[in-house]
Amino acid sequence: MTNSEPSVGEQSLEAILSQTLGADAPAQLADVLPFLVRDLTEIDARLHQVLGSTYPQLTEAARYACSTGGKRIRPLLMAATHRALGATSTQPIHSLAAAFQLIHTASLVHDDVIDHAEMRRGRPSMPRAFGLPTAIVAGDYLFVRAFELAADYPRAIILRCGEACADLVEGEVLQDTSRFDLTTGREHYFRVIERKTGAIVAAALASVAEIAHASEAVVDACASFGKALGIAFQVRDDLLDLYGDPDLLGKPLYSDLREGNPTLVALEAYGSLEGAKKGEFERIFALRRKQPGDLLRLRTLTDETGAPDRVAAEASRWAERAIRSLDPIPPSPYRTLLVRSARGAADRRF
Amino acid sequence: MTNSEPSVGEQSLEAILSQTLGADAPAQLADVLPFLVRDLTEIDARLHQVLGSTYPQLTEAARYACSTGGKRIRPLLMAATHRALGATSTQPIHSLAAAFQLIHTASLVHDDVIDHAEMRRGRPSMPRAFGLPTAIVAGDYLFVRAFELAADYPRAIILRCGEACADLVEGEVLQDTSRFDLTTGREHYFRVIERKTGAIVAAALASVAEIAHASEAVVDACASFGKALGIAFQVRDDLLDLYGDPDLLGKPLYSDLREGNPTLVALEAYGSLEGAKKGEFERIFALRRKQPGDLLRLRTLTDETGAPDRVAAEASRWAERAIRSLDPIPPSPYRTLLVRSARGAADRRF
Repeated sequence: MTNSEPSVGEQSLEAILSQTLGADAPAQLADVLPFLVRDLTEIDARLHQVLGSTYPQLTEAARYACSTGGKRIRPLLMAATHRALGATSTQPIHSLAAAFQLIHTASLVHDDVIDHAEMRRGRPSMPRAFGLPTAIVAGDYLFVRAFELAADYPRAIILRCGEACADLVEGEVLQDTSRFDLTTGREHYFRVIERKTGAIVAAALASVAEIAHASEAVVDACASFGKALGIAFQVRDDLLDLYGDPDLLGKPLYSDLREGNPTLVALEAYGSLEGAKKGEFERIFALRRKQPGDLLRLRTLTDETGAPDRVAAEASRWAERAIRSLDPIPPSPYRTLLVRSARGAADRRF
Repeated sequence: MTNSEPSVGEQSLEAILSQTLGADAPAQLADVLPFLVRDLTEIDARLHQVLGSTYPQLTEAARYACSTGGKRIRPLLMAATHRALGATSTQPIHSLAAAFQLIHTASLVHDDVIDHAEMRRGRPSMPRAFGLPTAIVAGDYLFVRAFELAADYPRAIILRCGEACADLVEGEVLQDTSRFDLTTGREHYFRVIERKTGAIVAAALASVAEIAHASEAVVDACASFGKALGIAFQVRDDLLDLYGDPDLLGKPLYSDLREGNPTLVALEAYGSLEGAKKGEFERIFALRRKQPGDLLRLRTLTDETGAPDRVAAEASRWAERAIRSLDPIPPSPYRTLLVRSARGAADRRF
């Protein structure tokens, strides 16, 4: 690794842990921290190694996308799951963790093209920084490198990875059909986020369990945990779009509202409103171009319904469901990290 | 297969053969035609089988993209190569041929997004027919299904397939850096098309040779043949953008000029012009929005230089180079088809 590549030092993993798992997490997990730091550093190195291209522009674009790819929560969950299942070295899952991180990043890059996003994690989004053509192509490149990494594994794992990607894009298409439309309802919403967010985390953790030669029950438990955690994460995301701190999030608020995504908060608020206010909410929500006043009005109407508290409770219920899925996995500091990750997904501020 | 899926009947393969290989090809290849018809039909069935999704919209979009994906020249070359190397059944390469066809189609879909293409093979392009979000996502879906198909093969073949995809997207990025710029020159041009068109055909045919347990020399010969044929095809494409029949092509002329792609014809013309006309050519070529009069002026200036004849000769030279690569392969009707395919790539009218 050269200096130009982002690395995961002990400091930054501590920051990740306290931000996503609570301030006391580094202290509580002090015994296992060095192992996870090494895991994440090695996964990052593997990831950056495969991004090298003979074309500096493409390497630069791909690495830029990965350096704004978020909190590395997926590789952390994969490493912790592998160790919670008894692995003393996570080397066998490094390529797979890098592959899933690349798939996640590729989907974010194409999302940002589709959603006209300007910012991602405090930096210009890929299409903003490199232009639409390079953003589309760099997303493809990340998918391609992910599949090359997956080629290290048995066919069943490659196919599981592929199916999760298919779920991911199905979720995108399904989401696109419901834009600016509040009548699609909760069932549709959960179908979208199960595919967009749940399936890929489920596939990642189930694959780790398979590589650890876990029993079928444990593989299923890991899949259920990943799916529920992914859903908790996404439900929380909906709230942060309205009530988060834009500096912490690294992007402006209200992007879901602007793009007409019927989030769970919007659906809950709409379901609770009656009469003229319901009509007003629906009408403003459907506007293709919303003024700042429109966005604030939607938020005010949402506040009046109490929807945010109910949605926060729903995120927590998904986190608890994730945690119950871990029953077949024996207690360990790594299992504790998984438990805290699920609660963190539902409580996080960024 | 249901009726809604396009099939490759003997009639349509005859049409493909006479259009791409010359009118007498079906008669000359009558003995082998039934085998190739069956091969292409089975490859098509495999392809459509994997496109099924639980979401009708995505299946529809993916199948639409494949039904406008072109002349199926890649699966035809793969089947003919497999048989030229002695295979009596092409079953072992069906999944791979479907995978390469999907990769090709995915790249066309994302190309059409990047190039703002309105038409593809006589029908509205994917972004035009389904909107930009679905076009981006459906392209991703085609890549994903391609890699699932590739998972049927040994790691070395999956990696060869992945490297070809990486070349493909590198070619895209490289092309994007030279838009509206005639000073990038021939070397840059050939670097782009080797990657965008040559690498994927080379990888497809080399993989077929590997599956046929061919010697290393024959694998290399197939790769060289595929690469040179792909380049001949692309050089011919540049000419057709200026001098083709839009009805046969199924799209309007001058799209390369409009998008500022420095094609070989444009580079040759620019290289031959002098003084005021050179300056005029460069200035009009660099216009982001060209009027019909601008496009015609570029064509008139091009005609004056004799560049089209020189570029046609260059396409033929690449075809002959492809044919010479076939030396290690013993004569057979299938080898004859490969020879004629190379000439057809350089001479084709659509």
